[in-house]
Amino acid sequence: MYRPQNLRIPGPTFVPQSVLAASARPMINHRGPEFASLLAGLTRALQDFLRTQGDVLLLTASGTGGLEAAIVNTLSKGDKVLVFSNGAFGERFHQVAKAYGVDARRVDVTWGRVLDPDLVRDEIAKEKGKDGAKAILITHNETSTGVLNPLEEISEIVRESGKLFLVDSVSGAGAVETEVDEWGIDVLVTGSQKAWGAPPGVAIVTMSPRAWKAYDRSDLPKFYLDLQQAKASLEKAQTPSTPAVSIFIALQESLKLMAEEGIEAICQRHRDLAFATRRGLQAINLQLFAEEAHASPTVTSFRSPTRVDSRNLIRILRESHDTIIAGGQGRLEGQIARVGHMGFVTLQDMVAFFSALELTMRELHQTVEPGQAISACLRAYDEATQPPPKAPRATARSGALAPTRR
Amino acid sequence: MYRPQNLRIPGPTFVPQSVLAASARPMINHRGPEFASLLAGLTRALQDFLRTQGDVLLLTASGTGGLEAAIVNTLSKGDKVLVFSNGAFGERFHQVAKAYGVDARRVDVTWGRVLDPDLVRDEIAKEKGKDGAKAILITHNETSTGVLNPLEEISEIVRESGKLFLVDSVSGAGAVETEVDEWGIDVLVTGSQKAWGAPPGVAIVTMSPRAWKAYDRSDLPKFYLDLQQAKASLEKAQTPSTPAVSIFIALQESLKLMAEEGIEAICQRHRDLAFATRRGLQAINLQLFAEEAHASPTVTSFRSPTRVDSRNLIRILRESHDTIIAGGQGRLEGQIARVGHMGFVTLQDMVAFFSALELTMRELHQTVEPGQAISACLRAYDEATQPPPKAPRATARSGALAPTRR
Repeated sequence: MYRPQNLRIPGPTFVPQSVLAASARPMINHRGPEFASLLAGLTRALQDFLRTQGDVLLLTASGTGGLEAAIVNTLSKGDKVLVFSNGAFGERFHQVAKAYGVDARRVDVTWGRVLDPDLVRDEIAKEKGKDGAKAILITHNETSTGVLNPLEEISEIVRESGKLFLVDSVSGAGAVETEVDEWGIDVLVTGSQKAWGAPPGVAIVTMSPRAWKAYDRSDLPKFYLDLQQAKASLEKAQTPSTPAVSIFIALQESLKLMAEEGIEAICQRHRDLAFATRRGLQAINLQLFAEEAHASPTVTSFRSPTRVDSRNLIRILRESHDTIIAGGQGRLEGQIARVGHMGFVTLQDMVAFFSALELTMRELHQTVEPGQAISACLRAYDEATQPPPKAPRATARSGALAPTRR
Repeated sequence: MYRPQNLRIPGPTFVPQSVLAASARPMINHRGPEFASLLAGLTRALQDFLRTQGDVLLLTASGTGGLEAAIVNTLSKGDKVLVFSNGAFGERFHQVAKAYGVDARRVDVTWGRVLDPDLVRDEIAKEKGKDGAKAILITHNETSTGVLNPLEEISEIVRESGKLFLVDSVSGAGAVETEVDEWGIDVLVTGSQKAWGAPPGVAIVTMSPRAWKAYDRSDLPKFYLDLQQAKASLEKAQTPSTPAVSIFIALQESLKLMAEEGIEAICQRHRDLAFATRRGLQAINLQLFAEEAHASPTVTSFRSPTRVDSRNLIRILRESHDTIIAGGQGRLEGQIARVGHMGFVTLQDMVAFFSALELTMRELHQTVEPGQAISACLRAYDEATQPPPKAPRATARSGALAPTRR
């Protein structure tokens, strides 16, 4: 039976047909000239997207493998580091560091709230001197709660401290402004299956010159995720072990589509669709979980209606309407739902999502008129994407809901 | 320009059209019911193929990631282990162990020669008692030289010793008889892109109950490759982090094709085609590199003609005849070439290979008549696959070249 799905989870994201088709090309030799040219092209394209002249290394692994690579290639056993966490992925970054015997202190912020730059400044101030933390680990876009941490502001503080800066941008980069070199990010990690719109299986890791100096001092054991091996192989346009060739080919195609749109337009599209999504949810009385001022452009979390387990809402969406969204992770299980608008997502995808959500809400005995969420979503999108008014003075539209405030 | 390739490297192997098409299916949720059913089915099918009732865990990684998983999940820092090596992958297994601070003693056998069970017995005998090696690490099929080590005989010796038995069967299992439980293999590693005929990106690792006991004592740091995490997730039919979904789907399709053929028939086909390949090579005066008695059923290595760099032969095959074979690794670079007949390979693929090789040899000023290698290959195949003669007494055909002796 033909039942196409509307895949609206925050990764793996929807993969466009041309990218799927690319992934199904006949297998090639990973030590031959075609793969060499593929790998060189991918590396250059990713350097452009991530705004770095540093190294970009591709690992056959999921994002978590990339986080582990960030840690084992720059830190040593017993190193003190500071991990800022406001969600499940912040906690995961901390867990990986602990698993390798890094002395990782976690600074927790309530899930759904942002990592405030003032907090970051205060906590880093406690880590001065020789005995202070050597590195700062931070999550850019917290997928589990739908919060975008203000990485640019935070990066200024980290840069001033002179500490190594390791960033989990698995679900951010490619959809959210990310300036690796300008912001002084030493290691940034992202994944093929998120904003990049390719299938999962490839982690993307940047390394600054400072990160390489840290590599030389690092004593954590590594082999498969050893970035020096990856770099040495890259110089021969190869990978140390057999790469996920078909995902690399898919990524080449998705980066081509992304280059055609341009990273600025991509980031704007994500902001606009996230805004429209929030307004659509609110229009049917669904409460946003994350602080709106720091709501993620790639994933929106919302609370389940009172006395409704979010797993039930998610199940109806899937079983009756072939619409796939994610639930709460860890302590948020059953409480929230998360809808992804990450990667190759259009306004029509969100309209389709809201049509399914409206029906689901009615099935859950919530008062929702047909089109209620969709109309609000469309109005918000219209508002966000209209050219600015020509009137010389500020108008009502420059208020809280205006695009420039988001 | 349409230039289909004959991909004859020992992995990634040729991927059938239906497997490629499966890999290009629309992306699905890795935490949903479809993936759960996919993962459960894959696990059961692999348990059947590998003849184990123990755990089979799937990692998003290449084979090397699987080797690392075998080590970090069962060993501790300073543990003494014995690594038997007769090629580049034996050396790699040793390197991974060393990278994690394991006290790994490597027993080297000349490349191209087999790991003799007597040698294994003698070396293990030196490792008796408390201070002796705790584990034996061995390569089943040495891809770099084309040697199949006699794992069944070796396994008896290891079993008697009571030591942990870690086996790299990355390029063996799925094409070569592999009895994980019967042979007492504690951890066996293989990879999606080898005999399994799926794209690269998934490592397959088995764990025996004894391996899990070793896990409990192991102190090597691990997170991404932590098999206990993988097992805990598997109980919910999930993976700890985002898996390479499209490769998992591809693998499901290739395992279906393999189940239709049956593992015994698959192993026989590999032996027959390997035999035919060796005879074809010898017919045009190319010298086999590996001892024939222990020649691999999945990859055949041969020496380049005198005064011909094998890289040149490989280049002509690729550039003029779209036929892709592999060169020598490490110290064998330039000296040997390796042709893969691993996974979904047919007699016609090998005939096509020999047609290209004959032309290449002529280009290299070698005396080769058109059809010379092909005819020998076909005769050998015929000999190997003919039903046994009905005569009650042994005939000339039961000599050195007969199928039963291989």
